[in-house]
Amino acid sequence: MIGKFIVFEGVEGGGKTTQIQLLRNWLLEKLQSGQPLSKSPDLEVIITREPGGTKVGKTIRELLLNADLSGEQIQERAELLLYAADRAQHIETLVKPCLERGAIVLCDRFIDSTIAYQGYGRGLDLALIQQLNHIATGGLKSDLTFWLDIDVEIGLTRAKNRGKIDRMEQADIQFHQRVKKGYQELAKNNPLIVQIDANLTIEKVQQQIQEIIIQKLVKWKYI
Amino acid sequence: MIGKFIVFEGVEGGGKTTQIQLLRNWLLEKLQSGQPLSKSPDLEVIITREPGGTKVGKTIRELLLNADLSGEQIQERAELLLYAADRAQHIETLVKPCLERGAIVLCDRFIDSTIAYQGYGRGLDLALIQQLNHIATGGLKSDLTFWLDIDVEIGLTRAKNRGKIDRMEQADIQFHQRVKKGYQELAKNNPLIVQIDANLTIEKVQQQIQEIIIQKLVKWKYI
Repeated sequence: MIGKFIVFEGVEGGGKTTQIQLLRNWLLEKLQSGQPLSKSPDLEVIITREPGGTKVGKTIRELLLNADLSGEQIQERAELLLYAADRAQHIETLVKPCLERGAIVLCDRFIDSTIAYQGYGRGLDLALIQQLNHIATGGLKSDLTFWLDIDVEIGLTRAKNRGKIDRMEQADIQFHQRVKKGYQELAKNNPLIVQIDANLTIEKVQQQIQEIIIQKLVKWKYI
Repeated sequence: MIGKFIVFEGVEGGGKTTQIQLLRNWLLEKLQSGQPLSKSPDLEVIITREPGGTKVGKTIRELLLNADLSGEQIQERAELLLYAADRAQHIETLVKPCLERGAIVLCDRFIDSTIAYQGYGRGLDLALIQQLNHIATGGLKSDLTFWLDIDVEIGLTRAKNRGKIDRMEQADIQFHQRVKKGYQELAKNNPLIVQIDANLTIEKVQQQIQEIIIQKLVKWKYI
C-alpha cells in the first residue's frame, strides 16, 4: 500500500461531504501546482463513501436506507452483514486498487460508523461488529480519521435543512447522542482519530483539517 | 422451537423443488386427513428457500445471481457476507416464527450449500464460512437434512433441460464434482444428513424421503 486512506466520520450534519470536496480541491491544487508542495505532480485524490462506493454497494445502500419492503423490517444481524458486504466489496474493488497505485483516498464513513451507529446508537453486539469489521476489511485500517464533531442539535438542524432525510437521520436526538458518545470512546482509544470542532464555519473547519494534513503529508513524505 | 426445520441439499438438477412440493402435499394429506396420522390436524407445512426466502433476500438473490454490474465482479468476501445477510434475515423473519408456532419448514438449501459451493467448490476459507454461518443462523440448525445425491453429469443435463441457467449452473463440471465432494464430507460428519439416491425416478426418490420422514414423525411424536 503506497497511497493513504483518509476517513471522515461523525454524526449527521457535520459537513463531511463539503469538507471532503474542499480538501480534495486543496490537495490537488497544492500538490500538483509546483512549489512548495511539488513532489507529487501526478497525485490522484479519490472521493468515495460507505455504504454505496461500488455498484454492488449502491444496491446494498438502497436496500439499507430507502427500500420499500412492504412492512418487512431488516433484522439486526442482516443489517450488520449487509454493511459488511458493502465494505468488503468497496475495499477490494475500489480502495485497495487505488492505494496500490499511490492515490489518496478520502472516504465518507468507514468501520467507526458501524461501531458508533449500530453499536453505541442501536445497542447491537460490539464484539460481533468488530468481528464483521475485521472480516469485511481483511484488516485494512485508515491512515488517518477525521472525526467532525458537531453538537447533535446543530447537526440535525443542518441535515434537516438540506431537505432529504434518510432512515438514519429520522432517528431521534437521544440516538444521535449515543452515536456521538460512541465516537468519543473510539477517539479516546485510537490516536489516529483526530477530533475536529465542526460547529465552526465551513472555512474554519477546513482550516483545521488542512493544518493536520500538512503535518501528515510531511510525515508521509508527500512534501 | 416446537416445529421442525427440514432442509434439502445437493447439486443442481437433483430435483429439490419437485421433491419438496411432493413432500408437502403428502405431509398435509397424511397428517390432516385423520387415521392413522391424525395427531396434527392443524399442521402447517411451509416451503421456503435460500437465498431469496424474504423480501430483503429477493433483492440479495437478484444481486448474487442475475444482476448486471457492468463488469464489476462480486468479491469473494462480499459474496459470503451477502449469503449470510440473506440467511440472517430469513431465519429471523420467516424460519424462527414458523417453528415457534409449530410448523414444519421445508427449506431449499441452507448452511451446507455455502460450505459445499463456496468452500469446496470455489475454495473459499472454510473457517470463515463456518464463522459467518454461525453469525447468520445464531446457532439454529436443521432437524433433518436430505442430501439429494445425483450423478453430476445427470444433474447438470437435467438443469440445462429446464431452460434457465443461472450463474451457479453455468460453472463447469469439475466445480460441481468438488461441490459433491463437499456434501460427501459433510454427510460423513453429520448424522442428521440423510443421503438419498436422486438418480432414480421422481416417485422412487419421494418414496425414500417419505420412509425417512415417517420414522422421524414417530420420533418427534407427530404421529
